[in-house]
Amino acid sequence: MRALYFDGKGAVYREDMPVPVCLEGHSLIKIMIADICNTDREILKGYRPDFRGIMGHEFVGSVIESSDPSLIGKTVVGELNEGCGSCIYCRTGREKHCLSRKVIGMSVDGCFAEYMTLATHLLHVVPDGLIPEQAVFTEPLAAALEVLKQVDIDPSLNAAVIGDGRLAFMTAQVLSLTGISLTVIGKHPDKLKLFEPFADTALLNDYLTDEGYRSLTADECFEYVVEASGNESGIRLALNIVRRMGTIILKSTYAGKTSLDLSVIPVNEITVVGSRCGPFEPALKLLKDGRVSFPEVELYDLKDYDKAFSSPAFKAGFCFR
Amino acid sequence: MRALYFDGKGAVYREDMPVPVCLEGHSLIKIMIADICNTDREILKGYRPDFRGIMGHEFVGSVIESSDPSLIGKTVVGELNEGCGSCIYCRTGREKHCLSRKVIGMSVDGCFAEYMTLATHLLHVVPDGLIPEQAVFTEPLAAALEVLKQVDIDPSLNAAVIGDGRLAFMTAQVLSLTGISLTVIGKHPDKLKLFEPFADTALLNDYLTDEGYRSLTADECFEYVVEASGNESGIRLALNIVRRMGTIILKSTYAGKTSLDLSVIPVNEITVVGSRCGPFEPALKLLKDGRVSFPEVELYDLKDYDKAFSSPAFKAGFCFR
Repeated sequence: MRALYFDGKGAVYREDMPVPVCLEGHSLIKIMIADICNTDREILKGYRPDFRGIMGHEFVGSVIESSDPSLIGKTVVGELNEGCGSCIYCRTGREKHCLSRKVIGMSVDGCFAEYMTLATHLLHVVPDGLIPEQAVFTEPLAAALEVLKQVDIDPSLNAAVIGDGRLAFMTAQVLSLTGISLTVIGKHPDKLKLFEPFADTALLNDYLTDEGYRSLTADECFEYVVEASGNESGIRLALNIVRRMGTIILKSTYAGKTSLDLSVIPVNEITVVGSRCGPFEPALKLLKDGRVSFPEVELYDLKDYDKAFSSPAFKAGFCFR
Repeated sequence: MRALYFDGKGAVYREDMPVPVCLEGHSLIKIMIADICNTDREILKGYRPDFRGIMGHEFVGSVIESSDPSLIGKTVVGELNEGCGSCIYCRTGREKHCLSRKVIGMSVDGCFAEYMTLATHLLHVVPDGLIPEQAVFTEPLAAALEVLKQVDIDPSLNAAVIGDGRLAFMTAQVLSLTGISLTVIGKHPDKLKLFEPFADTALLNDYLTDEGYRSLTADECFEYVVEASGNESGIRLALNIVRRMGTIILKSTYAGKTSLDLSVIPVNEITVVGSRCGPFEPALKLLKDGRVSFPEVELYDLKDYDKAFSSPAFKAGFCFR
């Protein structure tokens, strides 16, 4: 079959990969669409130096074989982390944090291929009426919904999202559905335009002075601040604009060390919540109901992976149909 | 009256201070016992450079005059932060974080004196049978109880407290009352002995190797980790021993900047909760019921403030009776 393989140095297009064998408890999926996530780009830069295999973890596909026969023929999306099933994380609803988990596209073969296998319990059926081009947003939208799972949002208060990229867009859309007063703080006026239908927008410069951060009144500060800029300066801004006893949600990761005055956390009793992968079912429901919508995915043939990886589109991916 | 005054450089013992005038909404309190908190020591080192006035914020006293006549003659303790009453923090149960609050012993006259005034709504009556020498622990014990107010502790899991000082002792006692499996990690075998009646103890070195932190299994890690060591290395240890999706509670403050690899917070979905002053009423109840107990306070005459400040006792203070 055709697949995009990571050989430790870069992506290699291959046509000689075998169709994977469907093991017990697993399903064989024919991939329809697979999207590129920034993590895939990070893998090309060396994020997973020991990984060798087929890349990709965001997909929509059709079930060909399965340990659950009722799934055969169904269109599905799937979670990426398969835990060991017996450790404390797997036994307490934290399979995605299992220390010996398999992660498609990062430690085992992923979805940039015609076929992939995945543990059946990680599959979610795409509801009728939801097209693959939208269903493929399930995984990143689920990650945004993780914020609602972790933090009790009081919609009568206010929130800010730092960042104007894709992660910020997903999270801001989800927060806006609570009805909360929402401000998105970004660097790019053109990107901020996308947020205007559902949030106030502000330029990062509005919060800066020549000396550092502009000093804000308690009313100007935010009860919830989501850091989704991917830039470590975002966490400093977050600490400056969050209310006392407020909550900062860290969605972005940063390479390397960050130097911070941490005493502000106990002194102002701030809560910092790290947030990552989230629940698929509500993401599918929001997509099906049209409560959230995303710019169209730009689809490429797998052979054109170079173009796809360097695409500036909101989301680029591969089409196997 | 006699008082210990901070003149911007150091503590000055004075006998010429006027008895304060009791304003509307306030009470005049005759101080019985006043304890030294580490914050008082920090003030002597320059923590509040603009403050000039009577030091001290932990006290037990007797009400002489009050806007609430039912309090006259009662033994009381009192909270230290008096908010403006109208800002968003005061209106949402966060008076202690009001940006224009008055703080006894830090921005207005405190309790290292024969008499002090305080807003009446900040007073709490000491229950019959609770002696002043124990009641004076209300404020620091309340700060430990703030952890239970902020974090839903599942007592079927496990917790660690980093630190073997007074703050760690208070917090560990409170956590132990939930029945949770509790480990206290400290540097000093002699101090750790104090914790043995209600916690497992471990030496910091057990968690270190020559190269850094010992790698722990998921079972060895802790669901809740309280950083109460007062040392910034404590936060690094906390990040190494907390379970994925676990919670770190920061009780200690540190001067200066700390350099950290923050990506572990989103990647492992860790929650970091800053924690400070807490609720007085449950602290008074635990003290009255004898659920927690503390080593005896070492009491000094106000004139001997030098000795009191440098005392190595668990708690030192002044007696005005």
